[in-house]
Amino acid sequence: MSVTRPAGFTASGVVAGLKSTGALDLALVVNTGPRTSAAAVFTSNRAKANPVLWSEQVIRDGAVSAVILNSGGANCFTGSFGFQTTHATAEAVAAALEISASDVLVCSTGLIGTGDQTFRDAILDHVPATVSALSRDGGPDAAAAIMTTDTHPKQAVAESPAGWSIGGMAKGAGMLAPGLATMLVVITTDADLDPATLDRALRSATRVTFDRIDSDGCMSTNDTVTLLASGASGVAADETEFTEALTALCLDLSRQLQADAEGASHDIAIEVVNAASEDDAVVVGRAVSRSNLLKAAIFGNDPNWGRVLAALGTTDAVFDPYEIDVSMNGVMVCRRGEPFESRDLVDLTPRATTILIDLKSGASAATILTNDLTHDYVHENSAYAS
Amino acid sequence: MSVTRPAGFTASGVVAGLKSTGALDLALVVNTGPRTSAAAVFTSNRAKANPVLWSEQVIRDGAVSAVILNSGGANCFTGSFGFQTTHATAEAVAAALEISASDVLVCSTGLIGTGDQTFRDAILDHVPATVSALSRDGGPDAAAAIMTTDTHPKQAVAESPAGWSIGGMAKGAGMLAPGLATMLVVITTDADLDPATLDRALRSATRVTFDRIDSDGCMSTNDTVTLLASGASGVAADETEFTEALTALCLDLSRQLQADAEGASHDIAIEVVNAASEDDAVVVGRAVSRSNLLKAAIFGNDPNWGRVLAALGTTDAVFDPYEIDVSMNGVMVCRRGEPFESRDLVDLTPRATTILIDLKSGASAATILTNDLTHDYVHENSAYAS
Repeated sequence: MSVTRPAGFTASGVVAGLKSTGALDLALVVNTGPRTSAAAVFTSNRAKANPVLWSEQVIRDGAVSAVILNSGGANCFTGSFGFQTTHATAEAVAAALEISASDVLVCSTGLIGTGDQTFRDAILDHVPATVSALSRDGGPDAAAAIMTTDTHPKQAVAESPAGWSIGGMAKGAGMLAPGLATMLVVITTDADLDPATLDRALRSATRVTFDRIDSDGCMSTNDTVTLLASGASGVAADETEFTEALTALCLDLSRQLQADAEGASHDIAIEVVNAASEDDAVVVGRAVSRSNLLKAAIFGNDPNWGRVLAALGTTDAVFDPYEIDVSMNGVMVCRRGEPFESRDLVDLTPRATTILIDLKSGASAATILTNDLTHDYVHENSAYAS
Repeated sequence: MSVTRPAGFTASGVVAGLKSTGALDLALVVNTGPRTSAAAVFTSNRAKANPVLWSEQVIRDGAVSAVILNSGGANCFTGSFGFQTTHATAEAVAAALEISASDVLVCSTGLIGTGDQTFRDAILDHVPATVSALSRDGGPDAAAAIMTTDTHPKQAVAESPAGWSIGGMAKGAGMLAPGLATMLVVITTDADLDPATLDRALRSATRVTFDRIDSDGCMSTNDTVTLLASGASGVAADETEFTEALTALCLDLSRQLQADAEGASHDIAIEVVNAASEDDAVVVGRAVSRSNLLKAAIFGNDPNWGRVLAALGTTDAVFDPYEIDVSMNGVMVCRRGEPFESRDLVDLTPRATTILIDLKSGASAATILTNDLTHDYVHENSAYAS
């Protein structure tokens, strides 16, 4: 039941009319306590949506009582009118729940530039419905209401033998290159943890999960990942155990996002090993993940390893290009910068694809999750606004 | 007649069997003097093809008598065998022309990893044919022989009233993001200029032309632009006039490359104005040119300006994202970070597309030339190697 699995949370999803399809498009997640600890990470894009600008202020005191999320419009580059819409939304939720607007996080997703009076009216008119629909099994509706081009909701849960649990929901699909993705994620826990601990755990987890998805190289203006703790289990979770569980849950959600990326037919894990530093491994993995030529080749089931080497050669990471080994789905097609095993041995028909790059320059490693470049991606993204 | 327009040059193109289609695939351009001044710029990719590694040494003394170029194989990541192939090719040309191998530039283009014994034999067996086919009207054959996925040869000429001329040929198509592009360019002139002057003129011209093409964000391992001067006009060209003419010719060839980029249906000029510095303008233009989402939208004739702002927000250039104006084909769809003129007014049906970004942060400007992301691009690059 995703975000309503942990004790102390209710959620809902309703139809506000933001999506032309008439699907669920407005979600509310409420922390009923006893505590309202929270942490959040946001897009590092300088072009930030109004809800991000608002929520960055809300999270400062580490207290969040509710998160309201809409699909059907990003409310980004909509000016002061758009910011007022976000503010009014938080106020409306606060009034209905009898809490402070400064404890209401707002998240929006959809087309950038959408945030006019019709948009505002649709949200404000339906805030009461989200409140009256709140329930202990509302997680799935909330997860459905935040979808844009996602084909299905993404949810995950984790339970500790110590007596606490974590629940999460996410949406992704396109503009999916979180530095910190059009990714919205809400994670809840009933562990009894303070905001500082939540913040450390969340940053530790997102750094090696959501931050390592690079589906299409495009960083969103609205990415938000938030973690709410109700303390309702009464268990003060061990920070290390909690961070490990949270990281595993974030990785689970990351892989769900990758698996449902717009138009994708391959989930590609770019594993960079023996790098001089973790940063180097990430830089190389990300450069390779952004090669349209390689991604189109993978779509065509073509093990075109030369495009891997051409991409990594654009980075300033430490390595000798002529010493590098590249394996594709277990076949070492390039050894020390020369053709080795036959490319004909590589089977790229499975959706899961692994490209292993051995830099031979150290002991660090990182894996970047990306997708192939397909006709469906082009189609979906050439027709999105219309 | 492209590279054979200036006096003092002969050229040829022959069938060496490198292309499975049986088309022209081996070209030779020879400077018959009286002087053999030359300059060259190469890919800044650290993964450099063997012919680039060779040619970087050849150009050091500023003297080049001949350039041999093949399509049908990049001879990149082919190890010491591949380097020996390049060396042997230069030696074969030198022997046939009775010149020094250290004055023979070698350029290759095609699939990375191709450079085996069959490749070597095909080239070496056909060097004599390229020499015997040399003629004063061989430019067009040479321009055809360097094509890969190009649909037609690219050639340009410029003539000065002072009595000298410039000729150029180029190939591009994919992996087209010169920093310096799978771009090979040979430019000839009969102006009487020394290598240092040629080098200054070439770097000045390529910096604002070829270096500002970013068709698909993928930098090649084989890009080479070389400029040869025969001095055969007997006219010592004025450096400023020569550099201006050379820059105009390079821009002409750049636009030909853009117009024939793999699968493209729009030629997009991203004009960044009022930037704090030229570097900022280039950084912003390049970031926007690499947004697959924007490029797919343009393919779909969708003026999705939010994707422009999302892309530039990922840069560290100086600007306030909420002050930026964005116009598409003359319609200001975004003014000061808010929707302005209706997107419905934008006509994206012409192939030529202009995106004007006003950063309002200074007086510098730059234009990046890119293309849209289309079904044909995906198709062509998912099937290239097979």
